[in-house]
Amino acid sequence: MKVEFINPFLSSLINVLATMAQTELTPGKPKIKKDEVAQGDVSGLIGMVGPQTKGSFSITFDESLALAIMERMLGERPDSINEEVTDMVGEITNMVTGGAKNLLGEKGYDFEMATPIVVSGKNHTITHQCDGAKIIMPFTSPDGNANIEVSFDTL
Amino acid sequence: MKVEFINPFLSSLINVLATMAQTELTPGKPKIKKDEVAQGDVSGLIGMVGPQTKGSFSITFDESLALAIMERMLGERPDSINEEVTDMVGEITNMVTGGAKNLLGEKGYDFEMATPIVVSGKNHTITHQCDGAKIIMPFTSPDGNANIEVSFDTL
Repeated sequence: MKVEFINPFLSSLINVLATMAQTELTPGKPKIKKDEVAQGDVSGLIGMVGPQTKGSFSITFDESLALAIMERMLGERPDSINEEVTDMVGEITNMVTGGAKNLLGEKGYDFEMATPIVVSGKNHTITHQCDGAKIIMPFTSPDGNANIEVSFDTL
Repeated sequence: MKVEFINPFLSSLINVLATMAQTELTPGKPKIKKDEVAQGDVSGLIGMVGPQTKGSFSITFDESLALAIMERMLGERPDSINEEVTDMVGEITNMVTGGAKNLLGEKGYDFEMATPIVVSGKNHTITHQCDGAKIIMPFTSPDGNANIEVSFDTL
Protein backbone atom coordinates (compact mmCIF):
# COMPACT_ATOMS: atom_id res chain seq x y z
CA MET A 1 0.00 0.00 0.00
CA LYS A 2 1.32 3.38 -1.00
CA VAL A 3 1.14 6.50 1.13
CA GLU A 4 -0.87 8.17 -1.65
CA PHE A 5 -3.81 5.89 -0.83
CA ILE A 6 -4.29 7.81 2.39
CA ASN A 7 -5.05 11.02 0.49
CA PRO A 8 -8.62 10.14 -0.57
CA PHE A 9 -9.45 9.43 3.10
CA LEU A 10 -7.76 12.64 4.20
CA SER A 11 -9.59 14.87 1.73
CA SER A 12 -12.86 13.07 2.36
CA LEU A 13 -12.58 13.59 6.13
CA ILE A 14 -11.73 17.29 5.80
CA ASN A 15 -14.64 17.72 3.40
CA VAL A 16 -17.15 15.83 5.57
CA LEU A 17 -16.30 17.74 8.75
CA ALA A 18 -16.24 21.13 7.03
CA THR A 19 -19.62 20.46 5.39
CA MET A 20 -21.41 18.74 8.28
CA ALA A 21 -19.97 20.56 11.24
CA GLN A 22 -18.01 23.64 10.13
CA THR A 23 -15.00 22.03 11.75
CA GLU A 24 -11.56 22.53 10.31
CA LEU A 25 -8.89 19.92 10.98
CA THR A 26 -5.21 20.51 10.33
CA PRO A 27 -3.57 17.42 8.84
CA GLY A 28 -0.15 16.38 10.12
CA LYS A 29 2.33 14.20 8.34
CA PRO A 30 1.18 10.70 7.35
CA LYS A 31 3.35 7.96 8.79
CA ILE A 32 3.84 4.33 8.04
CA LYS A 33 2.75 2.91 11.35
CA LYS A 34 5.27 0.85 13.22
CA ASP A 35 5.14 1.32 16.95
CA GLU A 36 2.94 4.38 17.04
CA VAL A 37 -0.51 3.72 18.37
CA ALA A 38 -3.43 6.08 17.93
CA GLN A 39 -5.18 6.72 21.20
CA GLY A 40 -8.60 8.24 21.51
CA ASP A 41 -11.93 8.14 23.31
CA VAL A 42 -14.36 7.31 20.53
CA SER A 43 -13.55 5.60 17.23
CA GLY A 44 -15.36 4.54 14.10
CA LEU A 45 -14.10 1.45 12.26
CA ILE A 46 -15.11 -0.10 8.96
CA GLY A 47 -14.01 -3.05 6.88
CA MET A 48 -13.44 -2.87 3.13
CA VAL A 49 -13.50 -5.76 0.65
CA GLY A 50 -12.63 -5.52 -3.04
CA PRO A 51 -11.66 -7.84 -5.87
CA GLN A 52 -7.95 -6.93 -5.58
CA THR A 53 -7.75 -6.12 -1.90
CA LYS A 54 -9.22 -6.05 1.56
CA GLY A 55 -8.53 -3.75 4.43
CA SER A 56 -9.82 -1.58 7.21
CA PHE A 57 -10.23 2.08 8.07
CA SER A 58 -10.50 3.74 11.46
CA ILE A 59 -11.01 7.24 12.72
CA THR A 60 -10.33 8.09 16.35
CA PHE A 61 -11.43 11.25 18.15
CA ASP A 62 -10.58 12.86 21.44
CA GLU A 63 -13.79 13.18 23.46
CA SER A 64 -13.51 16.99 23.41
CA LEU A 65 -13.42 17.05 19.61
CA ALA A 66 -16.30 14.59 19.21
CA LEU A 67 -18.44 16.68 21.58
CA ALA A 68 -17.53 19.91 19.74
CA ILE A 69 -18.56 18.38 16.40
CA MET A 70 -21.83 17.23 17.96
CA GLU A 71 -22.49 20.70 19.33
CA ARG A 72 -21.97 22.30 15.92
CA MET A 73 -24.27 19.80 14.26
CA LEU A 74 -27.09 19.84 16.81
CA GLY A 75 -26.67 23.16 18.61
CA GLU A 76 -26.30 21.38 21.94
CA ARG A 77 -23.25 19.87 23.59
CA PRO A 78 -23.74 16.47 25.25
CA ASP A 79 -22.10 15.99 28.65
CA SER A 80 -20.28 12.88 27.51
CA ILE A 81 -20.10 10.30 24.73
CA ASN A 82 -23.70 9.08 24.50
CA GLU A 83 -25.62 7.14 21.85
CA GLU A 84 -26.12 10.24 19.71
CA VAL A 85 -22.37 10.76 19.60
CA THR A 86 -21.60 7.14 18.71
CA ASP A 87 -24.27 7.29 15.96
CA MET A 88 -22.64 10.44 14.62
CA VAL A 89 -19.18 8.84 14.65
CA GLY A 90 -20.62 5.85 12.77
CA GLU A 91 -22.16 8.20 10.22
CA ILE A 92 -18.90 10.15 9.78
CA THR A 93 -17.06 6.82 9.31
CA ASN A 94 -19.52 5.82 6.58
CA MET A 95 -19.34 9.18 4.83
CA VAL A 96 -15.53 9.45 4.91
CA THR A 97 -15.07 5.90 3.64
CA GLY A 98 -17.77 6.43 1.01
CA GLY A 99 -16.03 9.57 -0.23
CA ALA A 100 -12.67 7.77 -0.37
CA LYS A 101 -14.32 4.81 -2.15
CA ASN A 102 -15.51 7.15 -4.91
CA LEU A 103 -12.09 8.76 -5.29
CA LEU A 104 -10.24 5.42 -5.31
CA GLY A 105 -12.84 3.92 -7.67
CA GLU A 106 -11.97 6.63 -10.21
CA LYS A 107 -8.40 5.34 -10.08
CA GLY A 108 -9.55 1.75 -10.66
CA TYR A 109 -9.37 0.57 -7.03
CA ASP A 110 -12.78 -0.76 -6.17
CA PHE A 111 -14.03 -2.01 -2.85
CA GLU A 112 -17.30 -2.50 -0.99
CA MET A 113 -17.79 -1.26 2.55
CA ALA A 114 -18.97 -3.36 5.48
CA THR A 115 -21.12 -1.69 8.15
CA PRO A 116 -19.32 0.57 10.65
CA ILE A 117 -18.63 -0.24 14.28
CA VAL A 118 -18.09 2.42 16.94
CA VAL A 119 -15.89 1.92 19.99
CA SER A 120 -16.19 4.10 23.03
CA GLY A 121 -13.84 4.11 26.02
CA LYS A 122 -11.24 6.44 27.52
CA ASN A 123 -7.82 6.11 25.86
CA HIS A 124 -8.42 2.97 23.89
CA THR A 125 -5.97 1.95 21.20
CA ILE A 126 -6.58 0.37 17.81
CA THR A 127 -4.46 -2.14 15.92
CA HIS A 128 -5.24 -2.99 12.32
CA GLN A 129 -4.37 -6.66 11.80
CA CYS A 130 -3.28 -6.58 8.22
CA ASP A 131 -0.28 -7.97 6.33
CA GLY A 132 0.13 -4.78 4.33
CA ALA A 133 1.43 -1.41 5.47
CA LYS A 134 -0.61 0.58 7.96
CA ILE A 135 -0.69 4.30 7.43
CA ILE A 136 -1.64 6.64 10.23
CA MET A 137 -2.45 10.28 9.76
CA PRO A 138 -2.79 12.69 12.69
CA PHE A 139 -5.04 15.77 12.71
CA THR A 140 -5.08 18.62 15.17
CA SER A 141 -7.75 21.20 15.94
CA PRO A 142 -8.45 23.71 18.71
CA ASP A 143 -11.09 21.28 20.05
CA GLY A 144 -8.85 18.22 20.22
CA ASN A 145 -7.11 15.69 18.04
CA ALA A 146 -8.15 12.98 15.63
CA ASN A 147 -6.30 10.20 13.79
CA ILE A 148 -7.20 8.21 10.76
CA GLU A 149 -5.61 4.90 9.97
CA VAL A 150 -5.89 2.93 6.74
CA SER A 151 -4.63 -0.54 6.04
CA PHE A 152 -4.92 -2.63 2.88
CA ASP A 153 -3.63 -6.15 2.35
CA THR A 154 -2.53 -5.33 -1.20
CA LEU A 155 -2.67 -2.22 -3.47
CA MET B 1 -31.41 -11.11 10.66
CA LYS B 2 -32.57 -14.22 12.46
CA VAL B 3 -31.25 -15.40 15.81
CA GLU B 4 -30.19 -18.67 14.14
CA PHE B 5 -27.46 -16.77 12.25
CA ILE B 6 -25.59 -16.35 15.51
CA ASN B 7 -25.17 -20.15 15.83
CA PRO B 8 -22.37 -20.56 13.25
CA PHE B 9 -20.36 -17.90 15.11
CA LEU B 10 -21.11 -19.51 18.46
CA SER B 11 -20.03 -22.99 17.40
CA SER B 12 -17.01 -21.63 15.56
CA LEU B 13 -15.83 -19.72 18.66
CA ILE B 14 -16.28 -22.71 20.96
CA ASN B 15 -14.41 -24.88 18.48
CA VAL B 16 -11.54 -22.41 17.96
CA LEU B 17 -10.94 -21.88 21.68
CA ALA B 18 -11.16 -25.55 22.52
CA THR B 19 -8.72 -26.46 19.75
CA MET B 20 -6.25 -23.61 20.10
CA ALA B 21 -6.27 -23.05 23.81
CA GLN B 22 -8.07 -25.88 25.59
CA THR B 23 -10.48 -23.24 26.85
CA GLU B 24 -14.11 -24.06 27.40
CA LEU B 25 -16.66 -21.28 27.27
CA THR B 26 -20.22 -21.65 28.49
CA PRO B 27 -22.67 -19.93 26.16
CA GLY B 28 -25.48 -17.88 27.68
CA LYS B 29 -28.71 -16.92 26.00
CA PRO B 30 -28.46 -14.92 22.75
CA LYS B 31 -30.29 -11.62 22.89
CA ILE B 32 -31.48 -9.16 20.34
CA LYS B 33 -29.44 -6.17 21.43
CA LYS B 34 -31.37 -3.12 22.42
CA ASP B 35 -29.84 -1.25 25.30
CA GLU B 36 -27.39 -3.89 26.42
CA VAL B 37 -23.81 -2.99 25.73
CA ALA B 38 -20.97 -5.49 25.77
CA GLN B 39 -18.05 -4.23 27.84
CA GLY B 40 -14.60 -5.68 27.74
CA ASP B 41 -10.89 -4.95 27.73
CA VAL B 42 -9.76 -6.30 24.38
CA SER B 43 -11.93 -6.85 21.30
CA GLY B 44 -11.55 -8.14 17.78
CA LEU B 45 -13.78 -6.67 15.07
CA ILE B 46 -14.24 -7.58 11.45
CA GLY B 47 -16.39 -6.40 8.57
CA MET B 48 -18.27 -8.74 6.22
CA VAL B 49 -19.48 -7.98 2.69
CA GLY B 50 -21.56 -10.29 0.53
CA PRO B 51 -23.80 -10.06 -2.50
CA GLN B 52 -26.99 -10.11 -0.42
CA THR B 53 -25.75 -8.50 2.76
CA LYS B 54 -23.12 -6.64 4.72
CA GLY B 55 -22.43 -6.61 8.40
CA SER B 56 -19.96 -6.82 11.22
CA PHE B 57 -18.79 -9.21 13.90
CA SER B 58 -17.09 -8.49 17.19
CA ILE B 59 -15.71 -10.53 20.05
CA THR B 60 -14.91 -8.92 23.36
CA PHE B 61 -12.84 -10.46 26.16
CA ASP B 62 -12.21 -9.61 29.76
CA GLU B 63 -8.48 -9.04 30.23
CA SER B 64 -8.25 -12.04 32.59
CA LEU B 65 -9.72 -14.38 29.97
CA ALA B 66 -7.50 -13.05 27.16
CA LEU B 67 -4.41 -13.55 29.33
CA ALA B 68 -5.50 -17.07 30.32
CA ILE B 69 -5.97 -18.03 26.64
CA MET B 70 -2.53 -16.60 25.87
CA GLU B 71 -0.98 -18.57 28.70
CA ARG B 72 -2.50 -21.83 27.44
CA MET B 73 -1.30 -21.18 23.91
CA LEU B 74 2.23 -20.01 24.72
CA GLY B 75 2.90 -21.45 28.17
CA GLU B 76 3.56 -18.01 29.57
CA ARG B 77 1.17 -15.43 30.95
CA PRO B 78 1.78 -11.83 29.87
CA ASP B 79 1.43 -9.17 32.58
CA SER B 80 -1.04 -7.18 30.54
CA ILE B 81 -2.55 -6.84 27.07
CA ASN B 82 0.52 -6.48 24.86
CA GLU B 83 1.07 -6.79 21.14
CA GLU B 84 1.16 -10.59 21.30
CA VAL B 85 -2.28 -10.59 22.91
CA THR B 86 -3.77 -8.19 20.36
CA ASP B 87 -2.30 -10.31 17.53
CA MET B 88 -3.86 -13.40 19.09
CA VAL B 89 -7.26 -11.69 19.40
CA GLY B 90 -7.00 -10.67 15.73
CA GLU B 91 -6.21 -14.25 14.79
CA ILE B 92 -9.13 -15.62 16.84
CA THR B 93 -11.42 -13.06 15.17
CA ASN B 94 -10.28 -14.24 11.74
CA MET B 95 -10.65 -17.91 12.61
CA VAL B 96 -14.09 -17.59 14.21
CA THR B 97 -15.44 -15.51 11.32
CA GLY B 98 -13.84 -17.87 8.78
CA GLY B 99 -15.49 -20.86 10.45
CA ALA B 100 -18.87 -19.10 10.49
CA LYS B 101 -18.37 -18.07 6.84
CA ASN B 102 -17.98 -21.74 5.87
CA LEU B 103 -21.06 -22.78 7.82
CA LEU B 104 -23.20 -19.93 6.45
CA GLY B 105 -21.85 -20.53 2.92
CA GLU B 106 -23.24 -24.08 3.09
CA LYS B 107 -26.66 -22.52 3.68
CA GLY B 108 -26.25 -20.21 0.70
CA TYR B 109 -25.25 -17.08 2.59
CA ASP B 110 -21.95 -15.94 1.16
CA PHE B 111 -19.76 -13.11 2.30
CA GLU B 112 -16.15 -12.02 2.13
CA MET B 113 -14.26 -10.91 5.22
CA ALA B 114 -12.36 -7.66 5.61
CA THR B 115 -9.19 -7.61 7.73
CA PRO B 116 -9.65 -7.64 11.52
CA ILE B 117 -9.08 -4.70 13.84
CA VAL B 118 -8.27 -5.11 17.53
CA VAL B 119 -9.26 -2.59 20.19
CA SER B 120 -7.58 -2.49 23.55
CA GLY B 121 -8.65 -0.39 26.51
CA LYS B 122 -10.23 -0.97 29.92
CA ASN B 123 -14.01 -1.28 29.79
CA HIS B 124 -14.59 -0.09 26.27
CA THR B 125 -17.96 -0.58 24.65
CA ILE B 126 -18.83 -1.49 21.08
CA THR B 127 -21.81 -0.39 19.00
CA HIS B 128 -22.51 -1.99 15.65
CA GLN B 129 -23.95 0.66 13.37
CA CYS B 130 -26.25 -1.43 11.27
CA ASP B 131 -29.88 -1.08 10.19
CA GLY B 132 -30.57 -4.76 10.84
CA ALA B 133 -30.94 -6.54 14.16
CA LYS B 134 -27.90 -6.88 16.39
CA ILE B 135 -27.54 -10.12 18.25
CA ILE B 136 -25.34 -10.37 21.30
CA MET B 137 -24.28 -13.62 22.89
CA PRO B 138 -22.61 -13.79 26.29
CA PHE B 139 -20.12 -16.48 27.36
CA THR B 140 -18.82 -17.22 30.81
CA SER B 141 -15.74 -19.12 31.95
CA PRO B 142 -13.78 -19.50 35.19
CA ASP B 143 -11.17 -17.12 33.70
CA GLY B 144 -13.56 -14.32 32.78
CA ASN B 145 -16.28 -13.44 30.33
CA ALA B 146 -16.55 -12.91 26.60
CA ASN B 147 -19.27 -11.62 24.30
CA ILE B 148 -19.81 -11.99 20.62
CA GLU B 149 -22.01 -9.68 18.62
CA VAL B 150 -23.17 -10.12 15.05
CA SER B 151 -25.03 -7.67 12.91
CA PHE B 152 -26.17 -7.98 9.28
CA ASP B 153 -28.01 -5.37 7.25
CA THR B 154 -30.21 -8.01 5.65
CA LEU B 155 -30.50 -11.84 5.83
